[in-house]
Amino acid sequence: MKLFSSVNDVQNIDSLVAEALALKQNPHAYQHLGNNKTLGLIFMNPSLRTRISTQKAALNLGMQVIVMNLDKEGWALETQDGVIMNGTTVEHIREAAGVLGQYCDIIGFRAFPGLINRNYDYSEDIFNKFVTYCKVPVISLESAIRHPLQSLADLITIKEIWDTKHPDPSHKKIPKVVLTWAPHVKPLPQAVANSFAEWMNKANVDFTITHPQGYALAPEFAGNAKISHNQHLALENADFVYVKNWSSYNDYGKILSDGKGWMMDNQKLKLTNNAGVMHCLPVRRGLELADEILDSPNSLVLNQADNRTWAAQAVLKNILSL
Amino acid sequence: MKLFSSVNDVQNIDSLVAEALALKQNPHAYQHLGNNKTLGLIFMNPSLRTRISTQKAALNLGMQVIVMNLDKEGWALETQDGVIMNGTTVEHIREAAGVLGQYCDIIGFRAFPGLINRNYDYSEDIFNKFVTYCKVPVISLESAIRHPLQSLADLITIKEIWDTKHPDPSHKKIPKVVLTWAPHVKPLPQAVANSFAEWMNKANVDFTITHPQGYALAPEFAGNAKISHNQHLALENADFVYVKNWSSYNDYGKILSDGKGWMMDNQKLKLTNNAGVMHCLPVRRGLELADEILDSPNSLVLNQADNRTWAAQAVLKNILSL
Amino acid sequence: MKLFSSVNDVQNIDSLVAEALALKQNPHAYQHLGNNKTLGLIFMNPSLRTRISTQKAALNLGMQVIVMNLDKEGWALETQDGVIMNGTTVEHIREAAGVLGQYCDIIGFRAFPGLINRNYDYSEDIFNKFVTYCKVPVISLESAIRHPLQSLADLITIKEIWDTKHPDPSHKKIPKVVLTWAPHVKPLPQAVANSFAEWMNKANVDFTITHPQGYALAPEFAGNAKISHNQHLALENADFVYVKNWSSYNDYGKILSDGKGWMMDNQKLKLTNNAGVMHCLPVRRGLELADEILDSPNSLVLNQADNRTWAAQAVLKNILSL
Repeated sequence: MKLFSSVNDVQNIDSLVAEALALKQNPHAYQHLGNNKTLGLIFMNPSLRTRISTQKAALNLGMQVIVMNLDKEGWALETQDGVIMNGTTVEHIREAAGVLGQYCDIIGFRAFPGLINRNYDYSEDIFNKFVTYCKVPVISLESAIRHPLQSLADLITIKEIWDTKHPDPSHKKIPKVVLTWAPHVKPLPQAVANSFAEWMNKANVDFTITHPQGYALAPEFAGNAKISHNQHLALENADFVYVKNWSSYNDYGKILSDGKGWMMDNQKLKLTNNAGVMHCLPVRRGLELADEILDSPNSLVLNQADNRTWAAQAVLKNILSL
Repeated sequence: MKLFSSVNDVQNIDSLVAEALALKQNPHAYQHLGNNKTLGLIFMNPSLRTRISTQKAALNLGMQVIVMNLDKEGWALETQDGVIMNGTTVEHIREAAGVLGQYCDIIGFRAFPGLINRNYDYSEDIFNKFVTYCKVPVISLESAIRHPLQSLADLITIKEIWDTKHPDPSHKKIPKVVLTWAPHVKPLPQAVANSFAEWMNKANVDFTITHPQGYALAPEFAGNAKISHNQHLALENADFVYVKNWSSYNDYGKILSDGKGWMMDNQKLKLTNNAGVMHCLPVRRGLELADEILDSPNSLVLNQADNRTWAAQAVLKNILSL
Repeated sequence: MKLFSSVNDVQNIDSLVAEALALKQNPHAYQHLGNNKTLGLIFMNPSLRTRISTQKAALNLGMQVIVMNLDKEGWALETQDGVIMNGTTVEHIREAAGVLGQYCDIIGFRAFPGLINRNYDYSEDIFNKFVTYCKVPVISLESAIRHPLQSLADLITIKEIWDTKHPDPSHKKIPKVVLTWAPHVKPLPQAVANSFAEWMNKANVDFTITHPQGYALAPEFAGNAKISHNQHLALENADFVYVKNWSSYNDYGKILSDGKGWMMDNQKLKLTNNAGVMHCLPVRRGLELADEILDSPNSLVLNQADNRTWAAQAVLKNILSL
């Protein structure tokens, strides 16, 4: 693997999940792989889980890690070609990426969407240019429209919990996974939802998305998922419920209503098959997800966060093994 | 030791001081202890000495260190339970601490008081919740009302200097230590003073606190210390003078006057037994402490800062040896 | 070497360049040198290339690296002696440097000029005080008036390219190097230009500086360089062209005009001996330097950035070998 930007960069998602779970059992088994190798983690937007879990994964592999927060105000990058840079951008992404690629063996890069121009965001312009100009393998730490390390960690979590509940190897049932939209006070990217959808569409699960009218994901991400605007119906017999807000794709970047009635709570949990409840974090308690679920054994949010380390380590190990 | 938040977490402060001084002689003797262990240093408020000395201590022990500045504006944590998070806090401390605890073997955590609600600050709510939810050993990097790594470094410094001056092992005299309030332009927490007082009250010293009317420390910290509002009388025959500003505990968080006349200077030093003069830094020259003292051999401020490393290393070593 | 602040701290610049190029071939050959040694990188101003390349150089030498951004607002240092610190500065440089020197074996320090008081900036007051009070070897990561790691990387680049073009060891021709002023929208320090000039004046090159009227460098930096206000004449037969903006030294810190006509482009490149074109980065495309050059094989800007690592590593190796 030379690029980890979407599920399409992964040859076999089941093997990658298996590799991550093996690393979780034996975190320091491949410390020689990263010897004298440097991972650069470049953030155009703030990060907590992604930064620390990826840093930890790299350290487990014996790598050196250099973190750089280039937030939009502090070190604004120019991404358009042919412009006269007499404004507020201080460096062109051609130089910034080119330079960073010389200092690092692998780079993790994060840039969020502007949520104003849909075509621009969905072209993944900044991320793709960074990949082009840095010339070393790149891992997405969340781009304008995808968050693949999160989705891999989510799939690891589903696999881990499902296999624990069904230890019999002859067991053939597949889990019902529901992605449900949730309310939020700020317009959020579609990245986590998009990415989760494209991974679930490739995974061996029965996948449903439920959201209010107007919140349909882009068709290339929704894919063949079952779509429902009736959250109650969608949740019936779910084994896993992924709760997440996103802003509208159609009325791009907008919040269409207050979303009242869409918060996941214990009453809705009763519709499910005692589902594991997931969220990528940070979660707004009492708005997206009820406290009663987050503080219950049904909550898998800490499992997901823990698995971020093993997701990142499996990806790094693959790139280091090139 | 699973928690280092106050002097009460230490079984034997003399052994801990002895251990720190041994590490100072041989900083890299226990590098195997930290092998493949990660220390997370989480700051809700900025840090210079604490961050670098603790990072250095952990590196000396062979640990990996991950630093995270979660300042109040950038990644505001919700600490109250049961609230609807539709405001400015982006993540609940239950999740943030729970996640960080999964990535780290030990966590150092810093959070300052708001200096508005005394009961809230003195409940140590944020620090205690962090300890509860992260589920790994925690070291206080300064909390709302205590700064125990500073106090341990202070005690190490006193022990070191006193024993150098009195090398005869049969020597039984104990030092007179005076904590004196000093002026400042900003309302500061009581944390350093509180902590120093609770450590001195347990140490084998003769301990006096002097401050203007209205600046009495909380009774649980002042303990059995001698209290004087006459700085000159208090300083008489002092062997160590600890200079520090704090805002009022009674009129909570307030500056009661300009404090003129309370700056420590050479004239006051003459009242003492040629005392070593201490301050936790950063110090306001010419306001809290006169240049003439800071630039003289009586100043122990750099000794204290240096001993921050060995204080942190002794605590980390204890936790790693669990 | 105990101090690396200008070309005058280097006994033999040719040996230092040769050492850097040897390290480039064998980056990890001296990992034992840095064992249990800590490099502190202290920035009063933001950094991308300098921070990461120096961090990488230190890691290559087996050192531990601690980075601290003390930006002017966040942790304002007092530098004047004898003042009453009742204003906005939170710590005196005497204490800050003294403390940091205790935690680190070597310190890299960056501070920019204010561009208001020329005498003050050119006294290198902050940098020199930091060196005095920290008491350990210091590397300049750019000071008010010099950027020696950049200049060393520039000289390495010139040597590398020139020797590749002229592999015959009996070859005696020396390159013509031209430093040309370029337009910018913000008043920039003279540091990079000053430093490049003082290194070129000591190197075995034919050195010319060209700039509009009013932009003469300080005489101690311009030295014996040929000076021309006619950019076209100056560029004739140049082998290397260094493009860089700086604000006026005479009318201190000012931008005197929009600089139209001074941008380096392909038409001007035709005047040269197919010159390698250099810039320290970040570069304003279309303002200082034309895209057509930056995207062509004549551009050496990435080579220079890459050589920052080997420049820093050669300097660190020298200090560690004391």
